[in-house]
Amino acid sequence: MNKLLIVGTVAYDAIETPFGKTDKILGGAATYIGLSASHFNVKSAIVSVVGDDFSQEYLDLLSSRNIDISGIEIVKEGKTFFWSGLYHNDLNSRDTLDTQLNVLADFNPIVPEDFKDSDVIMLGNLHPNIQIGVLDQLTSKPKLVVLDTMNFWMDCALEELKQVLKRVDVLTINDEEARQLSGEYSLVKAAEIIHTMGPKFVVIKKGEHGALLFNNDQVFFAPALPLKEVFDPTGAGDTFAGGFSGYLAQQGNVSFNNMKNAIIHGSNLASFCVEKFGTQRMESLEKEEVNARLQQFKMLTQFDIELAQ
Amino acid sequence: MNKLLIVGTVAYDAIETPFGKTDKILGGAATYIGLSASHFNVKSAIVSVVGDDFSQEYLDLLSSRNIDISGIEIVKEGKTFFWSGLYHNDLNSRDTLDTQLNVLADFNPIVPEDFKDSDVIMLGNLHPNIQIGVLDQLTSKPKLVVLDTMNFWMDCALEELKQVLKRVDVLTINDEEARQLSGEYSLVKAAEIIHTMGPKFVVIKKGEHGALLFNNDQVFFAPALPLKEVFDPTGAGDTFAGGFSGYLAQQGNVSFNNMKNAIIHGSNLASFCVEKFGTQRMESLEKEEVNARLQQFKMLTQFDIELAQ
Repeated sequence: MNKLLIVGTVAYDAIETPFGKTDKILGGAATYIGLSASHFNVKSAIVSVVGDDFSQEYLDLLSSRNIDISGIEIVKEGKTFFWSGLYHNDLNSRDTLDTQLNVLADFNPIVPEDFKDSDVIMLGNLHPNIQIGVLDQLTSKPKLVVLDTMNFWMDCALEELKQVLKRVDVLTINDEEARQLSGEYSLVKAAEIIHTMGPKFVVIKKGEHGALLFNNDQVFFAPALPLKEVFDPTGAGDTFAGGFSGYLAQQGNVSFNNMKNAIIHGSNLASFCVEKFGTQRMESLEKEEVNARLQQFKMLTQFDIELAQ
Repeated sequence: MNKLLIVGTVAYDAIETPFGKTDKILGGAATYIGLSASHFNVKSAIVSVVGDDFSQEYLDLLSSRNIDISGIEIVKEGKTFFWSGLYHNDLNSRDTLDTQLNVLADFNPIVPEDFKDSDVIMLGNLHPNIQIGVLDQLTSKPKLVVLDTMNFWMDCALEELKQVLKRVDVLTINDEEARQLSGEYSLVKAAEIIHTMGPKFVVIKKGEHGALLFNNDQVFFAPALPLKEVFDPTGAGDTFAGGFSGYLAQQGNVSFNNMKNAIIHGSNLASFCVEKFGTQRMESLEKEEVNARLQQFKMLTQFDIELAQ
């Protein structure tokens, strides 16, 4: 079984949407990535940090999904990273109400010995220096390094971000961030520029408008599944990344054609994530539901056209 | 050969985009629909009205595409409908600078005798009463009636719009308009509501984010082709409608599966329209280019996935 190493936040979130609000619930990029990737046959581990205020129940949840949590440091008398956000009526934009870095401020990631030779590395959104710190601990070259980031690091750690990008195979990024990083409005041109920064593959996430995969002249597009109700978008991008990297780790095949399938698996899993608050939907998600919705994705996108006469 | 009846404006446009500006050039919904539909084996006619200031050269262009123009009334001493618009930097929004209805104010559409038994009717964006006036002249029930409209008629002629919708098979509409017409934010719910107003098929156009086709529980999605340069979005929606209705008229098959192909053909043709100012790109478009780009659409969207183990 191939190994997937996940690096990212494990956190408490407090979320408010037009449909309700939560107290502190389980959140964090690595959490969503891990839950999503657990739908594939991979041996996975999370490298992260929490405080000793973090609920054992949540750690048990991750373990129950066969995720190795020995790389999640628990800081004594530390407080877990906390994020609070308010979504606007259209759910496409949000305000951050509060960010408390807490134990994340001094996070020094330690990769478990058994995962230093992982096949796929999924670097969730974190300071680029932490992402570099993880890559430096690897003892063999992985098949694939996937990196997620955000505009915040472009604003305040651009040089470090550029350094880590040189060591990355796939960058996942949203459309606005792709424009900011490249200085190009056209996403086709933006991907071209980002290719020159290192990543051979660029995945541009457009939220409810789907995702694009670029590999030089090759392009693939997957829509988001049109849903009657979107309840809470938190974690959708990380769930996408978890499905993408989890599938690729399982298959051990990083061809462009296989990456198309990975994009579909990621989009499929993300379509569930938004149906309930936080990780709730992903915790209860069954294989049969995943497969049924994959069929929906086929119906949604596949056609059989003959060339015009 | 099946017959396609096109009703809509034939106009002068003046366009300004971040890349340049034009004087009065050929425009109008029926113009774009006709040029696009001429890529299929159909016998088509345009019903419209112009003033005697309208260039014979433009009429000849339409005729040269085998479009019957006997239904384009030329009003003596009348002035042709004129629209002028300014696109913003992202090309996703525009300001209307000037609208002069001119001869359109008293437009009384007359369907040529030979097209009163058309197979497909494509009603371009016009006052709903004009659209009804065309349907009333038909002598046999068409295979398919397609209607395009806009928010302006929802604001000032909603009851008339609801009357014509009862007689329509396919409504093409953009996302914001679908929300306005239905009162629902979710496009899935919006399509459900619009189904109850008459149209069995609802096509929701999302511009650069592609198009959705709804038929009760069936959904299909086609992306817009990611382009390096978008030069002028004018006419893209009408070009889409022309490809959609032209293909369906050619095939004479209005099944959901065939309508998927029609959506792809429409999206494909629209991807050319935006590459130059006005109708310029559509005037020079060759069959080989169309076919090559259809292959690109296949590469962009088709995948071969096995269900998760």
